Amino acid sequence: MTAVPKGFRLGGVYCGIKRYADKLDLSLLVSDRPCTAAGVYTTNLVFAAPVKWDRGLTPATDVRGVVINSGNANACTGERGDKDCRRMAELAAAVCDAKAEQMLVLSTGIIGEFLPLAKIESGIRDAAGKLGNDQAALTAAARGMLTTDTRHKVATRTITVGGNQATITGMAKGAAMIGPKMATMLAVVTTDAAVAPADAQRLLASTVDQTFNCISVDGHMSTNDTVLLLANGAASSVQLSGADLDAFALALFEVCEELAVAIPADGEGATHLVQVEVRGCRTREEARSIAKSVSESLLVKTAICGADPNWGRIVSAAGYAGVAFDPARVHLWVNDMHLYADGAPLGFDHDAASKSIKENRDTKILLTFGEGDESIRFWSTDLTAEYVRLNADYHT
Amino acid sequence: MTAVPKGFRLGGVYCGIKRYADKLDLSLLVSDRPCTAAGVYTTNLVFAAPVKWDRGLTPATDVRGVVINSGNANACTGERGDKDCRRMAELAAAVCDAKAEQMLVLSTGIIGEFLPLAKIESGIRDAAGKLGNDQAALTAAARGMLTTDTRHKVATRTITVGGNQATITGMAKGAAMIGPKMATMLAVVTTDAAVAPADAQRLLASTVDQTFNCISVDGHMSTNDTVLLLANGAASSVQLSGADLDAFALALFEVCEELAVAIPADGEGATHLVQVEVRGCRTREEARSIAKSVSESLLVKTAICGADPNWGRIVSAAGYAGVAFDPARVHLWVNDMHLYADGAPLGFDHDAASKSIKENRDTKILLTFGEGDESIRFWSTDLTAEYVRLNADYHT
Repeated sequence: MTAVPKGFRLGGVYCGIKRYADKLDLSLLVSDRPCTAAGVYTTNLVFAAPVKWDRGLTPATDVRGVVINSGNANACTGERGDKDCRRMAELAAAVCDAKAEQMLVLSTGIIGEFLPLAKIESGIRDAAGKLGNDQAALTAAARGMLTTDTRHKVATRTITVGGNQATITGMAKGAAMIGPKMATMLAVVTTDAAVAPADAQRLLASTVDQTFNCISVDGHMSTNDTVLLLANGAASSVQLSGADLDAFALALFEVCEELAVAIPADGEGATHLVQVEVRGCRTREEARSIAKSVSESLLVKTAICGADPNWGRIVSAAGYAGVAFDPARVHLWVNDMHLYADGAPLGFDHDAASKSIKENRDTKILLTFGEGDESIRFWSTDLTAEYVRLNADYHT
Repeated sequence: MTAVPKGFRLGGVYCGIKRYADKLDLSLLVSDRPCTAAGVYTTNLVFAAPVKWDRGLTPATDVRGVVINSGNANACTGERGDKDCRRMAELAAAVCDAKAEQMLVLSTGIIGEFLPLAKIESGIRDAAGKLGNDQAALTAAARGMLTTDTRHKVATRTITVGGNQATITGMAKGAAMIGPKMATMLAVVTTDAAVAPADAQRLLASTVDQTFNCISVDGHMSTNDTVLLLANGAASSVQLSGADLDAFALALFEVCEELAVAIPADGEGATHLVQVEVRGCRTREEARSIAKSVSESLLVKTAICGADPNWGRIVSAAGYAGVAFDPARVHLWVNDMHLYADGAPLGFDHDAASKSIKENRDTKILLTFGEGDESIRFWSTDLTAEYVRLNADYHT
């Protein structure tokens, strides 16, 4: 059971942006009081209108809500895209007695088409009449942001701060166009704790760095990637500090990690969720480079799809990551089976290793180096013929 | 008709490394006199024994030949791999009255298994008895280096230098594990012109940079990538200089470009050869980064597979290449159709664009920027369900 933090109401409806009425395509999230808001955005040079809008408004102290549409990314839409985005914020602001500048906007879907504003307007009105603060409302809002996802993604934690219980609840979308430094993934995390804007921005950035920036489905960074954090202080108006802030930071990390891992777990056409852990590097960024190289290698991804414990592809993908290391100190485990030690393959039971990959949806790759103490965990998917079919046929 | 340069004899045989006797798996190339030899190698930190061997010997003035096996890469095989590689060179040297250090070695195939030396020994003896200098011999040698390639790859040019005709002929293999900075691709270029070692090394490096380093099938750089150039001076013993050297450089470039493009054209499971041309960048490396990002985007590759003129995926892949540019000055053409201008999509005939992609095996993507005068051409493939099937099932 995932609780909605106090003072937030939300919902999701179908307004006709997507082709099929059994999908939802517009979500609205409203706080009954102004929120601290922080945002982390795509670093793609080609970024969508809502990214420009939100980036200009965060960090903030008086955000009232978020309006989200799926089915259309409002990206590569030029000045008209900017105007349409502002209009979307105005329409959402109107139904909750706020100013446009108090509404953040998220869009995801097809790039390069203009927003169907009439549909969005009716959707916002419809959603405003259905806002709730229960599980059903959260589910509807989480569904309204999906594109090719097969399931909605929510996560929650509660903490006790200053004698009060505070809740941190997030929802996310993403199943492809997922590469580190995020990808077509959107996430909104809400809390009824009170957090200072500078703390919110700093904690969100460091958390995203270790969660949403450690996932990859296809390495394609999107124009729309956004993670938002809204804190409204409805549980307690005292801004968190000291140990309370630390407890909040941990809960925020757990919520974001759960949401982040749920994205490759729902990767398009994927039959395996692949965790690549890299240890023994000089810096976390070097560990990330190696993990990314292994995670995004088509040959590694297809090997996992074929239940092939192909350590050669894994080790060679590490070798071209652009990170200096001593190959003679490399070890590799797949699903806890030691396949490679000190720069050479071990005699291992190939059939048992293959069986382990075949029978477990979760595949664990552990690579260790002898260069230092830094490590990272990274999540990815295998690559299947079904992924190709889905992405060859998506647009046309 | 592809001519073999004077003074070279070569051939290819089946010796049992591969499972199927209708494939060849061992090639031998011998020059009747010592050659200038240059080499360009994988920059993967995990490199195979033959890369270590050849790198230690080139540039050289007294190379007598090249022995090549397919089906086994002799990579990640540790000290025994080094010994096996030397033994392979010794065996080849023995059949042409040379020293081991005069024989270069190339291996390609499965990583992490030891070379079947008895088979290689009998293969070398067999090949030595069948060396020739005609088209059939060249074809056999070119076939002996293939792995998953569907066809052998040869190219030739002739030039007139100092009143003599000189020939430049190359053979190459590669169909996957192909990423810039080469990949599992091997190429051997031979010429009967006389070239100084320093010129050979410099020209080969700059040529590879613009040819074999401008192709990608899956972005996976291999442990074995090697391009060799052997010049024996059998057509004329006068070392090339001035305009003759320029003519040779151009012919070398043409041979290497033809071979390089033949690799993604034979890309595993590919239904399209995709040429990505990037113009208007500050440096060639920036142009290469953008071309690589577009070429390797799974979403671009699947879009081409699906005959989808999805400019959004192309432009967004350029946007995350790590190169600064003004998005408002970007233009995009696909198969000469202008899809995107000054940062926004044009109203184009989607059906006609899709039809053009569907009906042409060659797809041309042209991206222009407003940052400078540097450009690059890059070749890649689409990504198909067949590629996944081939690579999920290769090892097991």
